[in-house]
Amino acid sequence: MSDFSLKSWVEVSPNSDFSLQNLPFGIFSTSKKSPRVGVAIGDRIIDLVELNKNKFIQINENLVDNEYLNDFMAEGREFASKIRLRIMDLLREGNTELKDAVSRGNIIVNRAETTMHMPVRVGDYTDFYSSEDHARNVGTMFRDPDNALLPNWKHLPVGYHGRASSIVVSPAAIHRPKGQTKADDAEMPSFGPTRLFDFELEMAFITCKKTKLGESISVNDAENAIWGMVIFNDLSARDIQKWEYVPLGPFLAKNFGSVISPWVVTMDALEPFRTSGYKQDPEVLPYLKASKDANFDIHLEVALQPDGGEVETICTSNYKFMYWNMNQQLAHQTVNGCNINVGDMYASGTISGPEQNQYGSMLELTWRGTKPIMLKDGSERKFLQDGDTCIMRGYAQKDGVRVGFGEALVKILPAN
Amino acid sequence: MSDFSLKSWVEVSPNSDFSLQNLPFGIFSTSKKSPRVGVAIGDRIIDLVELNKNKFIQINENLVDNEYLNDFMAEGREFASKIRLRIMDLLREGNTELKDAVSRGNIIVNRAETTMHMPVRVGDYTDFYSSEDHARNVGTMFRDPDNALLPNWKHLPVGYHGRASSIVVSPAAIHRPKGQTKADDAEMPSFGPTRLFDFELEMAFITCKKTKLGESISVNDAENAIWGMVIFNDLSARDIQKWEYVPLGPFLAKNFGSVISPWVVTMDALEPFRTSGYKQDPEVLPYLKASKDANFDIHLEVALQPDGGEVETICTSNYKFMYWNMNQQLAHQTVNGCNINVGDMYASGTISGPEQNQYGSMLELTWRGTKPIMLKDGSERKFLQDGDTCIMRGYAQKDGVRVGFGEALVKILPAN
Repeated sequence: MSDFSLKSWVEVSPNSDFSLQNLPFGIFSTSKKSPRVGVAIGDRIIDLVELNKNKFIQINENLVDNEYLNDFMAEGREFASKIRLRIMDLLREGNTELKDAVSRGNIIVNRAETTMHMPVRVGDYTDFYSSEDHARNVGTMFRDPDNALLPNWKHLPVGYHGRASSIVVSPAAIHRPKGQTKADDAEMPSFGPTRLFDFELEMAFITCKKTKLGESISVNDAENAIWGMVIFNDLSARDIQKWEYVPLGPFLAKNFGSVISPWVVTMDALEPFRTSGYKQDPEVLPYLKASKDANFDIHLEVALQPDGGEVETICTSNYKFMYWNMNQQLAHQTVNGCNINVGDMYASGTISGPEQNQYGSMLELTWRGTKPIMLKDGSERKFLQDGDTCIMRGYAQKDGVRVGFGEALVKILPAN
Repeated sequence: MSDFSLKSWVEVSPNSDFSLQNLPFGIFSTSKKSPRVGVAIGDRIIDLVELNKNKFIQINENLVDNEYLNDFMAEGREFASKIRLRIMDLLREGNTELKDAVSRGNIIVNRAETTMHMPVRVGDYTDFYSSEDHARNVGTMFRDPDNALLPNWKHLPVGYHGRASSIVVSPAAIHRPKGQTKADDAEMPSFGPTRLFDFELEMAFITCKKTKLGESISVNDAENAIWGMVIFNDLSARDIQKWEYVPLGPFLAKNFGSVISPWVVTMDALEPFRTSGYKQDPEVLPYLKASKDANFDIHLEVALQPDGGEVETICTSNYKFMYWNMNQQLAHQTVNGCNINVGDMYASGTISGPEQNQYGSMLELTWRGTKPIMLKDGSERKFLQDGDTCIMRGYAQKDGVRVGFGEALVKILPAN
């Protein structure tokens, strides 16, 4: 467990997401260094290949001289905990081992001089639909305010499989997707760029276990299989989705690009921010009953930046608004024997809060475009425009310590 | 193009799926040989590692001394064509190069002494829903016989993403999955083994191209990206599906296991069996219009074997019954810029024909269990029972030449 009074001899601004108590893992490269495992602190990155070469840690080189975190994660949560605590010790004020080492210049890199890469090779990707406020908003808009939630929604964490290949790392640029849409009053569908380009504010957890087909992970064992989290922008084309999604779910409305934040924040770092979630009523089936709280108090926000304009926050939400927690999601996903792999990604679904400014998508914020958002430059938005940059940020914070995710940024390019 | 009059000096029974004109690729191992690329002929397998070591072909050893076909496929269709034609030449009657070689004993292995493995590492897996008769049957049963097809069905090849990790190779044994179901007259859902365990007779194609996010593959370029095909059994739990699938599609009803045949039949080998498909009416949008026929006349059948009982064919179908062809499926999947990878798998959806004995699932064959199938041992089946073995086979055949897929076999084990 992190000691919140510890400071680092590396300068860390109070607003930095990457405090000594965080130490997230990612894959970075520089003009001279090939992609490899790094740990972020303040504006710096600890190069784990060099840290290992210089014997500050002693692990198999292939685990860190690697273009993905999968092999490192496969060693399990305890292994990562030990490495992280060793690095925390090396970086704390008062410890001069690393601070005074000649090799320090090669071990500590300026973040500004690096390029970040996908942290994991994603085997399979699941998208859940676990925020009650979001599901209720969508149900109210598209179906019936009196029966906004479908009958299954409070009995199981609804989810579906998404495309793993199209998950990319921030900062990203994604072209407006083209596809089939059909206006309600049109007889035939037409083809062209989406007109209802949306973001979805989500978080995703990443698993560090490989199971065999036929095995299940119980709700109380799930935490051992969950390594860390990232912010996840599940970009969506609402008009394409509306036409295509019956009866088998979203397909081309989603698989043109999803954007994640590059640093994987460990569950160890998030542990101090554990909190209770929404009360689950009706009672869930036994296989979904967890013995302890498994929500986390993580502040989330989405900002929009028109081309050449100012960055404006357009919504704030929180991961604790989730009705279904990640242990329940993983237990549900595997209760039928579905096997999982190291590096699999499980997104939360759009995370909306109860208040209007806490809605996690343009669809909800503008209520299907009926209440456009006014931006400071005088323009208005119903959905995303070409040239807009959408920036998601998230952090947990208390007692002056921040454990943050950095950002998931995507610029919207015109249709190809 | 294959010469149908050619014979091999390797004995090939007239009913063998693996004729000289087929030469499918797969991954095999023996007690002495690690998993590697092989080519099937009759009851034999050509070991491509040994063939290459002995200079009968000359390629990078890593392409064949490999536990997956992905790297071999990544070299493209033309590369595979050349290797396949070279092997065809080596195996044809009259050519004594390989036949007389001392090394032959190590190059040619008895299929009975081998174990087959997953032919590819599947990056992403899509399941389409492209057989009109199947979609019409399902729509008639669950919705409205007069409006059996949903409005989008004839305008786009409906598809969704499935779980890649749970695709396994034949012969397989899969436990009856457990999950939530809810009877129509029950107030609450309950948890337990599925009672409506079904197979779905499908085929899948595999891509050999990697594209960048934002790129599309046109309907007329699609064939260059499609390397070969396998038989695909999309096992389904109908009662789980019914409760979970609204609004985001199938999830736990499918991801407990899908079974493929181990040999990848190349599109070259299938070329002589190209045929026209169902007429598409209404006209499709321009991006889905193909300049040539892209269906294939492949006979398909499903057999059931009760525990210790006889193998009985319970349905016969044909890949040519597909309304949407694979070029259209791939063009649609990528029209929004979705990127693809080598080894991605795209299943057809259940392939049913117009006649009742051509329906590709128990759901349709027994019309939701209202018309049970009578087996020779006197038992009846509404859906699959524990101990049943489900065997799917497929082959194209003309002028005495058979190009077949072998089988996708799965035994149903009791719930864990």
